[in-house]
Amino acid sequence: MQILLLSGGSGKRLWPLSNNSRSKQFIKLLNSPDGQKESMVQRVIRQLGESDLKGHVTVATSLSQADVIYNQLGEYIDVVVEPERRDTFPAIALAASYLKYEKSCADEEVVVVMPCDPFTEAGYFKVIEQMVHAVDDNVAELVLMGITPTYPSVKYGYVVPDESKLKGGIFSVKRFTEKPNVATAEYLIKENAFWNGGVFAFKLGYMMNIVEQYIRAVSFSEIRSRYVEFPKISFDYEVAEKAQSVAVVPFTGEWKDLGTWNTLTDELSEHTMGNVIMDEESENTHVINELELPIMCVGTRNLVIAASNDGILISDKNKSENIKTYADLLQYRPMFEERRWGEYKVVNTAEFSDGYKSLTKQLKIKSGKGISYQLHRHRNEVWTFIDGEGVLVLDDIRSVVSRGDTVTIKKGVKHAVRAISDLTFIEIQSGDLLVEEDIERFDYKW
Amino acid sequence: MQILLLSGGSGKRLWPLSNNSRSKQFIKLLNSPDGQKESMVQRVIRQLGESDLKGHVTVATSLSQADVIYNQLGEYIDVVVEPERRDTFPAIALAASYLKYEKSCADEEVVVVMPCDPFTEAGYFKVIEQMVHAVDDNVAELVLMGITPTYPSVKYGYVVPDESKLKGGIFSVKRFTEKPNVATAEYLIKENAFWNGGVFAFKLGYMMNIVEQYIRAVSFSEIRSRYVEFPKISFDYEVAEKAQSVAVVPFTGEWKDLGTWNTLTDELSEHTMGNVIMDEESENTHVINELELPIMCVGTRNLVIAASNDGILISDKNKSENIKTYADLLQYRPMFEERRWGEYKVVNTAEFSDGYKSLTKQLKIKSGKGISYQLHRHRNEVWTFIDGEGVLVLDDIRSVVSRGDTVTIKKGVKHAVRAISDLTFIEIQSGDLLVEEDIERFDYKW
Repeated sequence: MQILLLSGGSGKRLWPLSNNSRSKQFIKLLNSPDGQKESMVQRVIRQLGESDLKGHVTVATSLSQADVIYNQLGEYIDVVVEPERRDTFPAIALAASYLKYEKSCADEEVVVVMPCDPFTEAGYFKVIEQMVHAVDDNVAELVLMGITPTYPSVKYGYVVPDESKLKGGIFSVKRFTEKPNVATAEYLIKENAFWNGGVFAFKLGYMMNIVEQYIRAVSFSEIRSRYVEFPKISFDYEVAEKAQSVAVVPFTGEWKDLGTWNTLTDELSEHTMGNVIMDEESENTHVINELELPIMCVGTRNLVIAASNDGILISDKNKSENIKTYADLLQYRPMFEERRWGEYKVVNTAEFSDGYKSLTKQLKIKSGKGISYQLHRHRNEVWTFIDGEGVLVLDDIRSVVSRGDTVTIKKGVKHAVRAISDLTFIEIQSGDLLVEEDIERFDYKW
Repeated sequence: MQILLLSGGSGKRLWPLSNNSRSKQFIKLLNSPDGQKESMVQRVIRQLGESDLKGHVTVATSLSQADVIYNQLGEYIDVVVEPERRDTFPAIALAASYLKYEKSCADEEVVVVMPCDPFTEAGYFKVIEQMVHAVDDNVAELVLMGITPTYPSVKYGYVVPDESKLKGGIFSVKRFTEKPNVATAEYLIKENAFWNGGVFAFKLGYMMNIVEQYIRAVSFSEIRSRYVEFPKISFDYEVAEKAQSVAVVPFTGEWKDLGTWNTLTDELSEHTMGNVIMDEESENTHVINELELPIMCVGTRNLVIAASNDGILISDKNKSENIKTYADLLQYRPMFEERRWGEYKVVNTAEFSDGYKSLTKQLKIKSGKGISYQLHRHRNEVWTFIDGEGVLVLDDIRSVVSRGDTVTIKKGVKHAVRAISDLTFIEIQSGDLLVEEDIERFDYKW
């Protein structure tokens, strides 16, 4: 059995803790059993491990999320990166091709597709087990999870079951209804419709037959290189609604989309995280502070306050769904990112009247990891090492660097660094153009 | 005629825009006629210049405020620095001694003592003129300004006038009452009492007679060196309440103490200052953002939000007087300061498990100004110049520095820099002890 975890979304709804590089599923706010904080995707991976599902996980995602996935889930997770963003059908088609051609899975192997960010409980994974058995038993070509609606939501698609049970709590699907209006949603709930939770199970061969209607190829790399030939369409439209036989397994337990600050703060165990002072008159206020500087709340009520190097949000909890509109107006570069090698944050920027710019970062490279061999055409960099030890390469010359060392990297000079122990340094960039894209990468044999 | 401007207070009430180095009178939030922003002390100095008072201004202050006063009022202002903080009587006694011994003022010269932070209008300075004439005409030994109360405040001292006018709108003073309770304040207002606005006029000789009761000396430097011999007592108790003849000149115009966020925001012409996004549903919210990162307000109501490198405040406007209690709990070093030579802000700090620390600053030195020749025992510094040009001295060796230059200053190395043009650089401090006090200064002949 194979599990395909879909990780997408650019997630400005949880600004400033989510940005173009860190979608909501990567924010570490939830309590994990070991007393640490974990992100939504880390929680789902942990829950998969705790369940009886003995599947191997592959994450289907975009290039912008690959680094943070390796950072949070480890180097050994399988990641399939879309060459470009299209829709869920092409993403799942590409990942299925990966399973067939790269992991040599058989056509009979059951594949479970699931989102990476539901906030749910162990029963959810029991239902997935039932879905896998149903596919194995050929109950239907496609088996999906139906979530028992708790209110007439207009955000979800609905699945209308057939009156007659197929077997053991599994229904056959009469029809799908995409996001309805409230009146229709109320009617659907009376019909015992479920929310479509975005969890699907099928046999790999079933999906590959559909893939081959668009791209007939003999390798994963060929399919990937012809990715644009897949139509921009959702899995629901292209697969679920066209399937000959579809079954739905209901899940009645806790299932939440923590996609807005209002829903997310309901699940937080503390009212404050980070450097926060809150007076005794403050009420129903949640503060999440990723900055070093203190946040003080005096007499605040019904607010969510969140601060990162990207910005500071102060929102009435009931208005927090409006954030995205305003966050989309902000066209800044990300001011913090998790990368495969570690993380950085921008701590200062300056621009002068003649257009010359300066940007200061703090970077942390994990022990054993490194930054690729690269050069910049438009900027100089000064690195000052403040913790740990590493190997520096400057135009092919190696040296060991540690605390107290400062190196100047003029534009055009090739450079790389690899951490011997966890390495922290301050980087000062300066020049006329300071963008992440000003980078040429080279191979280097460590 | 001489004007003594008293500048004191550590002002945590306007945290995070005020801190131990920047008291409330130095925050630049008020509109000046040239379309720029000015601080309370800059506003008073401007208003003095616009009035008919042809006096010379001397500022009496503490060491911690001297730099910011020079920065905001210019190098040519006379500043008398208390050797230590005592109270208003010693501060005024020291400044009077300065006028006598350093500025050679005559005993007959009229001295006006005034606070540096009233928010008031031109009529206030007209009243000061009347006070000067009254002293000149020997109407009383001491003449003070009475502010017409607008409510029974318990924050101010009250001055009870004699029924009978002395002459031309001037009353003789029957008695003083220090900060009363509300009931007493209401009674005082029925008696036509005034608030004591802290503006006093007297002849220099009168004050020097009182000074000599404590310290009999022949020079300012001697009086300054014996400063501890002055009792820790206010001018009101030591001088005003003991005076033989005291007169009060009423001022009926606008006079406000912008000492809390609630009163200050009433005088701001804009609801937002700095990088702020506010949605249309936000109401009665003021945001002052001195940080680069954006602040977004969604559906906020009746809030004051202020952000600086010291921290971020979110307060209900009606609760803003509670801030000081909580701000006093914060025992951070100031994260930004105005200095005689320019200004700095701390943009990043890091501390590692073995106690090693790093602190990154951005410094701006004004053209022609410089940082004194100094060394540090506990920290290394790396300076990277990002704008302007300067002369650097490292262990007596001079060089010219500009954009793109990086210098490493190891502990124990004497260093200074002087700006040829406005000079900006990033400083990375690192070591086991990073405090402003780790400094030894040396003379250097530029």
